[in-house]
Amino acid sequence: MSKVKVAAFSVSLDGFGAGPRQDLQNPIGVRGLEMHDWFFQTEVFKRMTGQSSWIREMEAFKTIGQSSGARGIDNDFAAASFENVGAYIIGRNMFGPVRGSWKDEASGESWKGWWGANPPFHNPVFVLTHYGRASLEMEGSTTFHFITDGPDSALSKAKAAANGKEIRIGGVSVIRQYLISGQIDELHLAVTPVLLGEGEALFHGINLHQLGYKPVKVVAGEKATHVIIKKS
Amino acid sequence: MSKVKVAAFSVSLDGFGAGPRQDLQNPIGVRGLEMHDWFFQTEVFKRMTGQSSWIREMEAFKTIGQSSGARGIDNDFAAASFENVGAYIIGRNMFGPVRGSWKDEASGESWKGWWGANPPFHNPVFVLTHYGRASLEMEGSTTFHFITDGPDSALSKAKAAANGKEIRIGGVSVIRQYLISGQIDELHLAVTPVLLGEGEALFHGINLHQLGYKPVKVVAGEKATHVIIKKS
Repeated sequence: MSKVKVAAFSVSLDGFGAGPRQDLQNPIGVRGLEMHDWFFQTEVFKRMTGQSSWIREMEAFKTIGQSSGARGIDNDFAAASFENVGAYIIGRNMFGPVRGSWKDEASGESWKGWWGANPPFHNPVFVLTHYGRASLEMEGSTTFHFITDGPDSALSKAKAAANGKEIRIGGVSVIRQYLISGQIDELHLAVTPVLLGEGEALFHGINLHQLGYKPVKVVAGEKATHVIIKKS
Repeated sequence: MSKVKVAAFSVSLDGFGAGPRQDLQNPIGVRGLEMHDWFFQTEVFKRMTGQSSWIREMEAFKTIGQSSGARGIDNDFAAASFENVGAYIIGRNMFGPVRGSWKDEASGESWKGWWGANPPFHNPVFVLTHYGRASLEMEGSTTFHFITDGPDSALSKAKAAANGKEIRIGGVSVIRQYLISGQIDELHLAVTPVLLGEGEALFHGINLHQLGYKPVKVVAGEKATHVIIKKS
């Protein structure tokens, strides 16, 4: 059985998994990128930037510089989040800031994700959306599949695709749906020293204790506190 | 000017400062005591138990044993939370589980707090309540004053009493009121590896960023992660 996991998911001290008012300049909402500072310093991320021009071109990343990245606890957790993953499930908002039906699909100018020609997934990615669209094959073995018939369907398709490897879930709204249905086996949260003040609350209204989730490990990283939560 | 601080305040991973359904057996709500595990291990707390019979008598503390307590990072933060404090402000719920008007005041049988004859404050404690009551003088220089004309009045009385020393604020609802009015200068939170699932959310609906609060330090303790937040 494929393990279903949330990994390297950044959360603010006040419990937000994304900032408010997502748009092209704010892919994780206003100030959302601040929560990912721990990740941007890692060797794992620096290697990704070597592959993805979108990161180098984003204003927010100009200050990160061209160093080779840090090794250490944060980097180990970042690396582990990509290991042994056979499929991803993400939400429409994590895929992009575009809302409503997909435009310009026929001309090939439609939105293809934040990550440029060679996204960092290198596996099938199932995007939960209300608007159907043909699958998008990208470079580096990433294919986006657009799922319109709900989270259960996405999960069973992801399981088939993962072929025994793990399924990694991303995006606040999608994580919340799978938590409520009890289908997430393990979460690795990176709790970051940021107060967003507003945005998308990760756990609000979800009784994780009642659902059987328990913290099993806390590890202090260089720039984030890593918490492992498992479902019993 | 007296600094107004929240100190050694335990918060669950899901953002609760107290569990639900507070009563005599659950002074911090159901499972609320689990968040204070880091504190109960400390030398600071063990010394307090030597003074307060209520702690020794409570079922929840029977398992803690009679050791002398741990020194280390958690203990240092516990000790600092009591240092240089000249007055406390707490809420009715932190004072006790009794609701409505005070009963049996004339006979001396009325509720006198959780802490036995010699509470751990050793300073004036201003209790915010809707129900007036004569001040209660306890052993060890703790006096409870019951304030019915609101948080601003309690704060100015506490400032006068503190005489330049710090004012420590306790209790979720009271902390929330003083955060919203921007009157708290510094918070030390102990983020604990507990998922309460339900209870009293500490920050929900309060935009700390907009109010000028910023995390300035994160320190990994033995059993909690200590976070310092300051108002700019």
